[in-house]
Amino acid sequence: MIQTPYLLFLGDAPDQLAAKVAQGIRDWRPENAVGQFRMDGCKADLGLTDMSLTEAREAGARTLVIGVANRGGFISPEWKKVLVMALEEGFDLASGLHNLLRDEPDLAAVAEVTGRSLHDVRLPEVDYPIANGRKRSGKRMLAVGTDCSCGKMYTALATDQAMREKGMKSTFRATGQTGILITGDGVPLDAVVADFMAGSIESVTPDNDDDHWDIIEGQGSLYHVSYSGVTMALVHGGQPDALVICHEPTRTHMRGLPHFDLPTIEQVRDTALTLARVANPDCQVVGISINTQHMAEDEALSYMAGVEERLGLPTIDPFRQGAGRLADALGAIT
Amino acid sequence: MIQTPYLLFLGDAPDQLAAKVAQGIRDWRPENAVGQFRMDGCKADLGLTDMSLTEAREAGARTLVIGVANRGGFISPEWKKVLVMALEEGFDLASGLHNLLRDEPDLAAVAEVTGRSLHDVRLPEVDYPIANGRKRSGKRMLAVGTDCSCGKMYTALATDQAMREKGMKSTFRATGQTGILITGDGVPLDAVVADFMAGSIESVTPDNDDDHWDIIEGQGSLYHVSYSGVTMALVHGGQPDALVICHEPTRTHMRGLPHFDLPTIEQVRDTALTLARVANPDCQVVGISINTQHMAEDEALSYMAGVEERLGLPTIDPFRQGAGRLADALGAIT
Repeated sequence: MIQTPYLLFLGDAPDQLAAKVAQGIRDWRPENAVGQFRMDGCKADLGLTDMSLTEAREAGARTLVIGVANRGGFISPEWKKVLVMALEEGFDLASGLHNLLRDEPDLAAVAEVTGRSLHDVRLPEVDYPIANGRKRSGKRMLAVGTDCSCGKMYTALATDQAMREKGMKSTFRATGQTGILITGDGVPLDAVVADFMAGSIESVTPDNDDDHWDIIEGQGSLYHVSYSGVTMALVHGGQPDALVICHEPTRTHMRGLPHFDLPTIEQVRDTALTLARVANPDCQVVGISINTQHMAEDEALSYMAGVEERLGLPTIDPFRQGAGRLADALGAIT
Repeated sequence: MIQTPYLLFLGDAPDQLAAKVAQGIRDWRPENAVGQFRMDGCKADLGLTDMSLTEAREAGARTLVIGVANRGGFISPEWKKVLVMALEEGFDLASGLHNLLRDEPDLAAVAEVTGRSLHDVRLPEVDYPIANGRKRSGKRMLAVGTDCSCGKMYTALATDQAMREKGMKSTFRATGQTGILITGDGVPLDAVVADFMAGSIESVTPDNDDDHWDIIEGQGSLYHVSYSGVTMALVHGGQPDALVICHEPTRTHMRGLPHFDLPTIEQVRDTALTLARVANPDCQVVGISINTQHMAEDEALSYMAGVEERLGLPTIDPFRQGAGRLADALGAIT
């Protein structure tokens, strides 16, 4: 678990998009973001207070999070100065970069001497058990997609937010690196060893109050041949009571697989439900989340109305409309 | 890849069952087994020539395979003497024990100095790519089960053997440690990192002659919540043209999951076929393999006749009857 709150390191981000991890933290867990640290030439701005390392420490920040992706994922010499200084100032470091903090000899040595932690959220930090399939108390929702990168994390975060705003008990459970950085905890599922995938999901969604919901971030798709095994582990390890199907209507093929068509929402509904009921016979599909970012407002609303009529389920774009209707659908499950 | 042929190390096996890995090599790849090495007190006997290390080297053996499981999976001091001597004599070592050869400082040091290889088949030896889903030439069969440990490896080995006896082009593709030791090659799928599972299966079943069949060893079950993600990676990475459903009729619950009932053969057929057709729309279920080891002959034959009539597919026990009918069913696919 990463110590919060954070100082968000934007480095020399060439544009706002390069800082999208930091933006995610700012948007979804503003209470985790004490301020931002920008270097000369930084083109990103989260609208947070610019702080020096010392100022951020005094304001309570405990971890410097690398909230920016640079080309190639490497850790530049310019960054190094700041990162080493941060360790010396008492910060832990957290990163989702492909190149690992722990593989940088200077960072590893300074962290060792100063007793600080280096969190590389691409890799698991604990040993997970093999899943035991035991029925757990509390309730769980899982976002499943017709494809990769179609809005599952966003849907889960928005649903969690809507539930908490309604006074429901909810916890977003991260299963990927961005989600882990946003919340400070979770499972980097794609880096877990095969035998322990489902067990890692059981671990991150433990027994809870009967009226508490774990809102589990999905990964991959049952219809994406590169990653479907990862999705399957979520469907069975997560033991979901409720599924939300996520879809991006303008995709012309599966992400990264130009020769594969997307499944229909109905296909994913039927396949995911059949499989989910192996682990939890009471599982149901409660709603549809459409990512309409590439559609005009009229087109988006019309498309969603059509899906809602066809499937008879609340159908929303959480970015345009919030996820209040999904929260209500979960609240209706007893 | 492990160098063949082998000298099979039976150590101080307390009984025949403890040497079942060696027995598997002896049964399925007798050409890989030059002889056996037994220590004082060994209660197992494969009926192979007992050889000293020197004799086995002279007879062409290149790898000493630990074909015995001892209690706790550790490597005893008595074994060590033999293993160190084997390295000195020019053998590589191969093991599927839980405790790794490479973690034994003496073995690691002697292997380093002598330039020999230590193969711990529980762990991957190569970095696998992410699956690309590209259609590969040649044909593939995958054994899928209603449960774990219900005869998938045996079915695949027997099918491969039957095909080769009929003059068909066939290669057994191991996906677990015993299969890897038997053939000297394969993917220890349960130890592969999640993102690379399907890619590892693509790697081990590459392009081949149009009339060549890869007979892929299955793992887990789509209905076993602990391991279903591993099975899913086989279904999509393997891109099978044909599935054989494996079932053990006397199971009262899923292996290791006392609160989970087994699915029916029909459920596995339908679910596996739906998922397999995502990767290969032409996939079909060609036969049923029943593990009747806990049934009397009459009962077994009657049960299989019932399944065959119900499903309209060749239904056999490869141990009792061989897998000739499965080979014929594959031969009928063009």
